[in-house]
Amino acid sequence: MARAMFEPVFKEIFPFWSEISEQDKEYICKHTLAMTYPKGSNIHGGDVCSGVIFIRSGTLRVYIMSESGKDITLYRLHAGDICVLSASCVLDSITFDVFVDAEENSECYVIGPNAFAEVSERNDNIKIFTLETAVGRFSDVMWVMQQILFMSMDKRVAIFLLDEISRTKSEVIPLTHEQIAKYIGSAREVVSRMLKYFEGERLVELSRRGVKVLDKNRLRELTL
Amino acid sequence: MARAMFEPVFKEIFPFWSEISEQDKEYICKHTLAMTYPKGSNIHGGDVCSGVIFIRSGTLRVYIMSESGKDITLYRLHAGDICVLSASCVLDSITFDVFVDAEENSECYVIGPNAFAEVSERNDNIKIFTLETAVGRFSDVMWVMQQILFMSMDKRVAIFLLDEISRTKSEVIPLTHEQIAKYIGSAREVVSRMLKYFEGERLVELSRRGVKVLDKNRLRELTL
Repeated sequence: MARAMFEPVFKEIFPFWSEISEQDKEYICKHTLAMTYPKGSNIHGGDVCSGVIFIRSGTLRVYIMSESGKDITLYRLHAGDICVLSASCVLDSITFDVFVDAEENSECYVIGPNAFAEVSERNDNIKIFTLETAVGRFSDVMWVMQQILFMSMDKRVAIFLLDEISRTKSEVIPLTHEQIAKYIGSAREVVSRMLKYFEGERLVELSRRGVKVLDKNRLRELTL
Repeated sequence: MARAMFEPVFKEIFPFWSEISEQDKEYICKHTLAMTYPKGSNIHGGDVCSGVIFIRSGTLRVYIMSESGKDITLYRLHAGDICVLSASCVLDSITFDVFVDAEENSECYVIGPNAFAEVSERNDNIKIFTLETAVGRFSDVMWVMQQILFMSMDKRVAIFLLDEISRTKSEVIPLTHEQIAKYIGSAREVVSRMLKYFEGERLVELSRRGVKVLDKNRLRELTL
């Protein structure tokens, strides 16, 4: 029964599905739960091993948190994405902890970590898939780290946006990313990616008309 | 000939060596170079794909760099370690660039990226090994990121050390890591790891007598 429910989806999302045995397919499905997480709820935290989370709908936010409760968004996951850092017990080489919250009402399939680890042990293709997914996130995290640690781009883009809206008395800045990049002396790709990050943080809204500032106060905090 | 030189080492360091074909062994050895890098030289930079580097002796420093030239140490590699981020072209999921310098005179074996990638394609065990090595570094990087981004531990430890040497007029602080952790309200593991990081940066020297401050000025910079 569990198999009839989950297999059609797993067949789509897991490149290794066709290569594992019937028993392993059965075993994974048997240890999968269909979960609905309400907006704002915490799904995974600290050193618990929650399992591999597949997002059917909604948005999850993956972040790290300091002892004082300050948090930094590493990346967001949307429908179709898979979260493996929530199953760090499956990956021996991962020794750090992340938190995962539902940022919207989210439907997920969660594969139990022990079942996933056990089946991984028998199937190199699962191992490769899981590791590749983790390494892909490594790249996202490095990007955030570079931008924030070097205290340049988030600040510079935020300052530019605030200056513009105060100058033009309008919350919409009708410039292309290319133009903004020229103003602040950076590359278009960098500005686009930072604006997309700001959009994820609900600081701005991007459209063909340009950049609309949604939250002046939080944007200002970035410039301090 | 190349094989006679490299194989005894590769057999030791690569868990997959016994599982790949004779031709693949031959091919990897044929595309390996024995390199000696003088202290201070840059070995790998930016988006070049230098290959997989095995460190026979010496120390390599892996870091990221901002446009303005500011750099942050991610981790160090010593004799016996393997650097795969210098072969990011082998790992599709890695989309960021790191720099690698020789911090001491270092002898390395460098496997050409194309040969390594080609043989990887045929051998899942090589893929798993390379990905696992990369994910292990991900954990190191997350640690550095957490400590620095949250602006807590590096600053707090540096402030404590400077206060102590100014208070006691001695450059050696005869306290255990446990004691220091208690003073600054943190965990021993965190303090030990940060002190080890400082030692790598030549800011302090650790011994059974305690912590000796080597570079007051650079330590002070951390507290600003």
